[in-house]
Amino acid sequence: MAYNLLKGKKGIIFGALNEQSIAWKIAERAVEEGAEIVLTNTEVSIRLGTIGELAAKCNAPVIAADATNIEDLETLVDKSMEYFGGQFDFVLHSIGMSPNVRKGRGYQELNYDFLDKTLDISAISFHKLLQVLYSKNAVKEWGSIVALTYMAAQRTFVGYGDMADAKALLESVARSFGAIYGRDHKVRINTVSQSPTETTAGKGVAGMGGMLDFAHSMSPLGNALAEDCADYVVTLFSDLTRKVTMQNLYHDGGFSSMGLSEEVYHWFLDGKANAENK
Amino acid sequence: MAYNLLKGKKGIIFGALNEQSIAWKIAERAVEEGAEIVLTNTEVSIRLGTIGELAAKCNAPVIAADATNIEDLETLVDKSMEYFGGQFDFVLHSIGMSPNVRKGRGYQELNYDFLDKTLDISAISFHKLLQVLYSKNAVKEWGSIVALTYMAAQRTFVGYGDMADAKALLESVARSFGAIYGRDHKVRINTVSQSPTETTAGKGVAGMGGMLDFAHSMSPLGNALAEDCADYVVTLFSDLTRKVTMQNLYHDGGFSSMGLSEEVYHWFLDGKANAENK
Amino acid sequence: MAYNLLKGKKGIIFGALNEQSIAWKIAERAVEEGAEIVLTNTEVSIRLGTIGELAAKCNAPVIAADATNIEDLETLVDKSMEYFGGQFDFVLHSIGMSPNVRKGRGYQELNYDFLDKTLDISAISFHKLLQVLYSKNAVKEWGSIVALTYMAAQRTFVGYGDMADAKALLESVARSFGAIYGRDHKVRINTVSQSPTETTAGKGVAGMGGMLDFAHSMSPLGNALAEDCADYVVTLFSDLTRKVTMQNLYHDGGFSSMGLSEEVYHWFLDGKANAENK
Amino acid sequence: MAYNLLKGKKGIIFGALNEQSIAWKIAERAVEEGAEIVLTNTEVSIRLGTIGELAAKCNAPVIAADATNIEDLETLVDKSMEYFGGQFDFVLHSIGMSPNVRKGRGYQELNYDFLDKTLDISAISFHKLLQVLYSKNAVKEWGSIVALTYMAAQRTFVGYGDMADAKALLESVARSFGAIYGRDHKVRINTVSQSPTETTAGKGVAGMGGMLDFAHSMSPLGNALAEDCADYVVTLFSDLTRKVTMQNLYHDGGFSSMGLSEEVYHWFLDGKANAENK
Repeated sequence: MAYNLLKGKKGIIFGALNEQSIAWKIAERAVEEGAEIVLTNTEVSIRLGTIGELAAKCNAPVIAADATNIEDLETLVDKSMEYFGGQFDFVLHSIGMSPNVRKGRGYQELNYDFLDKTLDISAISFHKLLQVLYSKNAVKEWGSIVALTYMAAQRTFVGYGDMADAKALLESVARSFGAIYGRDHKVRINTVSQSPTETTAGKGVAGMGGMLDFAHSMSPLGNALAEDCADYVVTLFSDLTRKVTMQNLYHDGGFSSMGLSEEVYHWFLDGKANAENK
Repeated sequence: MAYNLLKGKKGIIFGALNEQSIAWKIAERAVEEGAEIVLTNTEVSIRLGTIGELAAKCNAPVIAADATNIEDLETLVDKSMEYFGGQFDFVLHSIGMSPNVRKGRGYQELNYDFLDKTLDISAISFHKLLQVLYSKNAVKEWGSIVALTYMAAQRTFVGYGDMADAKALLESVARSFGAIYGRDHKVRINTVSQSPTETTAGKGVAGMGGMLDFAHSMSPLGNALAEDCADYVVTLFSDLTRKVTMQNLYHDGGFSSMGLSEEVYHWFLDGKANAENK
Repeated sequence: MAYNLLKGKKGIIFGALNEQSIAWKIAERAVEEGAEIVLTNTEVSIRLGTIGELAAKCNAPVIAADATNIEDLETLVDKSMEYFGGQFDFVLHSIGMSPNVRKGRGYQELNYDFLDKTLDISAISFHKLLQVLYSKNAVKEWGSIVALTYMAAQRTFVGYGDMADAKALLESVARSFGAIYGRDHKVRINTVSQSPTETTAGKGVAGMGGMLDFAHSMSPLGNALAEDCADYVVTLFSDLTRKVTMQNLYHDGGFSSMGLSEEVYHWFLDGKANAENK
Repeated sequence: MAYNLLKGKKGIIFGALNEQSIAWKIAERAVEEGAEIVLTNTEVSIRLGTIGELAAKCNAPVIAADATNIEDLETLVDKSMEYFGGQFDFVLHSIGMSPNVRKGRGYQELNYDFLDKTLDISAISFHKLLQVLYSKNAVKEWGSIVALTYMAAQRTFVGYGDMADAKALLESVARSFGAIYGRDHKVRINTVSQSPTETTAGKGVAGMGGMLDFAHSMSPLGNALAEDCADYVVTLFSDLTRKVTMQNLYHDGGFSSMGLSEEVYHWFLDGKANAENK
């Protein structure tokens, strides 16, 4: 169902790789809600994924950009302003990657060049994007910028490795820049802390399937899906949330406020009891 | 602007006294967005305020109920289900009052009968409401319940007295009941932690005007107004936020994530310097 | 091992029932560290428990007091000041009880008279105690007051019921009163959020044994024991922590900062796999 | 006053520049409490500061090391183990520096090479240190590692710039590594979030004097001083806090739990009133 929540609004969506991507769902929903969008991703991701399909569906240009590269970002923003005929209204940052996690390096044996990459791609890219947007005054007053994050920024999860630190840094950037961008141009910046989600990126995390199960069993409403996230982010891009800023917003079926659910408790006790009975 | 976000939805709004009330604005916006509503407040508040005007405007019945009284709540819910022809979709709890604050009793000299009243009216009433709703299975799957709160639940503010404790209790009730109501009936429960707001209730807090100024100067986007809050709560009642539960959501122009703004810093230093120059 | 950390210090310990009580361990450790103490509990707890043994061991008077009763608290504080020859240095509040939990009433079917009792005994008693201490100026400058709490105040745990809300209220009282007591008399107030602990009180919570196991498996350092808690609280009573106030301090082997440990993950998956294989 | 709290304990102290440094005070207190220590800092800081005096006073060797350099850290740890005759008990990380802040670059105009330096020096250095300690199994069971941080990691403060992000990253590293080091070797890792403090490093932040005043006026117990911090950290190195891990511990006179104090409110209103009267 569509409400025209984003009618007349324009924005850039980073990070749609294929139809499993949360960014993909957000792009679709934004357009359904009346927005015009520009899609962007790295050259490699554009080649490896299927963003062309999304572009066709959304009637949107795809502009390649490496979000760790200031010049690429400047070009992207310039071209987008040209395409939109001026300032735009929203931006989604859905970018994260850890070479350490991908290569199975545990958190106690990080490769520091990889760590630099993790932080640059997953968190500093957000600052670079914001700095370019700010310096070009590219976002309209009461515009909205959202980055996707994960609760590993607050609590430690098996196997999430240095992505936890990258997410903590990302969330800090949102707050720090939110104070300035809000004060100077009334632009809000928030992060959405999403349930673990079955995406191509998520699959890089070892044992992701089990983590999805665990989170689902812990969450009173079950895991938030990519589609749910798209719905939620649409509200954050809309004019109905103009005074929400510098927040980390949990979108997780209640997981973040749970200590222990019946279901997790049950499986935990069962697992232990079975082991002891053997 | 209206989007039909709540088209076909039905709900109960507690706490509209007069047109300054946040609940009043939420009622108006909910109806604008297509909802049918029932209004409720205590007999006294109905007499003292102007809820009749709102009822006329919203084409809504007013059903008197004391939210601290289980029987009143049961009657209210029964009548509402009758009016709506069955289950409904959303509920707003916007109720708070401290006799200690009203009578100027400092937090270090509380009257404990008053404290009981503060907690019963401002927090336990929410549990009673939830328990009645739950026991009657009055709320549809994926329904949404929101209570209004204030950041004094996390940080201490001059003059807020035992309302701080009441809000902490209220937020805990939202989490505790959210776990159960979510698991059993997929109903979500959240609190919205709003900027200090110029309402009749707010005026009971000593020095409220100055606190509004302070909060405004600290917040990058300025204070969230009652109208902004109405917009925000509408998104929380809508189908677009179905996986958000057990959260305390700051709606405050960024105040909660600020340590010190330029503006506050400036006035603070000026105040001190002036005093020293005298 | 003892360090004379509390040499010359005097304080009141609430809540020692028997040698499993955390308060019991704290009393012992405080005395080992050179403190003089007064022990207190309700008449009933004094009769049911073995506080006489502790009193003998600690060379401490036992003064009966119901912490929900202002007159009892006033008498207790007066007698303690008489015994100590003036102001004292520290106070421990280790009091909590929920008739709802004890009688197996689920959180969705609370008896509200019981809830009032839960809140009065477990949280409002702390305000009453603080108000009496403050009004009599009974605590020395740089004195320290600690209340024991549990993480259910932040996240929902199966079976913890309305004690979660009581603990949230308790922690709020610590903050709210801490602001005033700190400003006026340099007295600090903190809460210690302890691992689930095998005490007589703890046993009232259904499935406590399993919860201890779960918390232990989740915590990198394992559960904090009552003895560990005694060590920790001694540091909070000492002069080495004079600028720590209005804090909720997790003493839990790391549980509060964990999302998912290997061990919990393992048993959870095993439990599910076993069920599916049947 | 000394208690022999660290009798027989051995540890490494990073970051003592001159007698204003918090690390300096901690080194002194640790030795007073019976510890043997190794001091370390960069070659440049050793030359610019007066660490030699501290070394003489503490009867401690100074081993130069750049905490961003793995080889330096390995040499430092090897030499320390040689000096101590094996594993040691505690480590203090008190390292932070932002070229952006130093050169007056606002957060909206960061130089990204500088940002990399800020993060590497102030946060990644902590991971490198931990990884070297872990890989060499250099810290005894129940050992304690502390890093100093600042509340800008949670809330935005004027002028604190990219150090806010560095501190957020630092705190995340403490949690992430704490989960592993705790599980595998029972070593705890915490951060202490200290009041703004008058140190040489602190002076790099523009308007530091005013921030000290503001924090002092907001905090019920006033700012925590470097000496207070030394006392507190000594408790964290002692055996009395063995189950505290993965925590960010506010040591700030109550600042972090304050929304608005009378004193700040007073100066704020005065500053505004004066301006309006002109």
